[in-house]
Amino acid sequence: MKTRIGIYGYGNLGRGIESALRQNPDMELAAVFTRRDPASLKINTPDVPVLRAEDAPSCADKIDVMILCGGSATDLPRQTPELARWFHVVDSFDTHAKIPEHFDRVDEAARAAGKVAMISVGWDPGMFSLNRLYAGAILPEGKDYTFWGKGVSQGHSDAIRRIEGVLDAKQYTIPVESALEAARSGENPQLTVRQKHTRECFVVAEPSADLARIEQEIKQMPNYFADYDTTVHFISAEELKRDHSGIPHGGFVIRTGKTGLEKEHNHVIEYRLKLDSNPEFTASVIVAYARAVARMGREGQTGCKTVFDIPPAYLSPKSAQELRAELL
Amino acid sequence: MKTRIGIYGYGNLGRGIESALRQNPDMELAAVFTRRDPASLKINTPDVPVLRAEDAPSCADKIDVMILCGGSATDLPRQTPELARWFHVVDSFDTHAKIPEHFDRVDEAARAAGKVAMISVGWDPGMFSLNRLYAGAILPEGKDYTFWGKGVSQGHSDAIRRIEGVLDAKQYTIPVESALEAARSGENPQLTVRQKHTRECFVVAEPSADLARIEQEIKQMPNYFADYDTTVHFISAEELKRDHSGIPHGGFVIRTGKTGLEKEHNHVIEYRLKLDSNPEFTASVIVAYARAVARMGREGQTGCKTVFDIPPAYLSPKSAQELRAELL
Repeated sequence: MKTRIGIYGYGNLGRGIESALRQNPDMELAAVFTRRDPASLKINTPDVPVLRAEDAPSCADKIDVMILCGGSATDLPRQTPELARWFHVVDSFDTHAKIPEHFDRVDEAARAAGKVAMISVGWDPGMFSLNRLYAGAILPEGKDYTFWGKGVSQGHSDAIRRIEGVLDAKQYTIPVESALEAARSGENPQLTVRQKHTRECFVVAEPSADLARIEQEIKQMPNYFADYDTTVHFISAEELKRDHSGIPHGGFVIRTGKTGLEKEHNHVIEYRLKLDSNPEFTASVIVAYARAVARMGREGQTGCKTVFDIPPAYLSPKSAQELRAELL
Repeated sequence: MKTRIGIYGYGNLGRGIESALRQNPDMELAAVFTRRDPASLKINTPDVPVLRAEDAPSCADKIDVMILCGGSATDLPRQTPELARWFHVVDSFDTHAKIPEHFDRVDEAARAAGKVAMISVGWDPGMFSLNRLYAGAILPEGKDYTFWGKGVSQGHSDAIRRIEGVLDAKQYTIPVESALEAARSGENPQLTVRQKHTRECFVVAEPSADLARIEQEIKQMPNYFADYDTTVHFISAEELKRDHSGIPHGGFVIRTGKTGLEKEHNHVIEYRLKLDSNPEFTASVIVAYARAVARMGREGQTGCKTVFDIPPAYLSPKSAQELRAELL
């Protein structure tokens, strides 16, 4: 009996879920829900219904876990508690500062409905958070460093696109190699924002635009670029499409810490991701946790969960015996 | 109320536990148990009793978690099930092939006694196993690579010491950089034993020994060295002490996998440890899991557990709220 998955929202992440499900034979796509006109949506899986978002509750008995693929700004704060009334759900809510209040709202809804609701699943928050927790518990006297990239920041790319005279743009966040080395050294350096990452921008400008002004506006943009060493390249629309249409990302979580009676020994724990497709990897993490949510639901657990609460074995299709024999 | 820890066996690992406990204010060392004469044992913590191993059961109400620090060959297969009759226990049983039978024996004893018993805690088995599980669940279509080192292999060092004419020796296992790069490439190379690691030996020989014969005997030793490119250096006892008295270790768990409708995207998940002291790091992992064992014991859980079964939050002294606010 396969775990039946619903996809709620069919953008990059939703398509990533659809494709990840094909790699997990114990799960199947049951339906896709959209706020667009369902007739206008062509999905990649034959014979799976595309339904109107507002009809989701009527499918409560056909779906074991609903995966929410909306955005963290306005979609998920509303959708996750609402859908947890009807389904076990997973979301990828990634506004770190607002996780506690999102948790409380979702927890209340899920408990009232007797459902399991996992929030903030992906790689940051998600796998990076897990590695911060494990490493911090193992090495209590130490220091954490998180680096992002090389990868595309959607928010920074959008900020450039809003500048007058810019037709299109792509921004890469790049960790500084010497800062990575300093973090690994165990000397607990204090690294400034500028020391940790650089930003590289590829910009398509209008033919008549003042390129010097655009470059200045980018480099001086508060919060987004002013605190970083930023490089701006003007390229053609064709070059942007040819060389920069991917959505790569990744990064590093590094913890160094001391042990020994005299704190004489240094240790480095490093977790690294190098991802060709940010949304597809995020989707792959979510699908593994959807398996865990289905199991917790069958066990009768309820309430809001995060990656911190889930026994690792719940993510795998293998039995506990197989895991011990093959992976331990 | 601190969690009271017993140390059963006071070698490198036991001393590592003792020192790790000082870094965890929610735990305290309650007693050390030894098979030696307790009067002959000087420990590093004042006012903590050193007791005879056979007297452990009489301390059942003074210890929340007993940490077993014996060897996997003969100590733990006997001690872990025996002590699980009296205590919640943690061991670092690391004979991978025998984990399933060790699990079954310990599980039976712990269930009968209503105790929690964690086995095979450390970094391999342990953190490396966890990373194999997580990465495999996230990227089902991919390939795992584990590399060890650079680090001291106690077993290989001992094997050299048994050669006639050898006074002392230290052996380092070293991952091959080009093999690491090949593993990360996503091309799923098949790497032979010889391609993945080299072995470097530092040997103190008797003054009259035939060095050429010793070198040959090392390089041709089946299982230990014959399948590897091995380098042998003859050095003085002083040099060995000065330059090679540490017990560093570490390694890499790398998984690459594909996603996308056409498997067009490649991803690399890499976990790396670089450890100045193998036993102290292992001890630090065990102490974090001892916290989890104490919690599970308070909850009334019973039976044998491995790192795969433990929700990550159980390792941390922080509350669930703190973890979500600070680390997620």
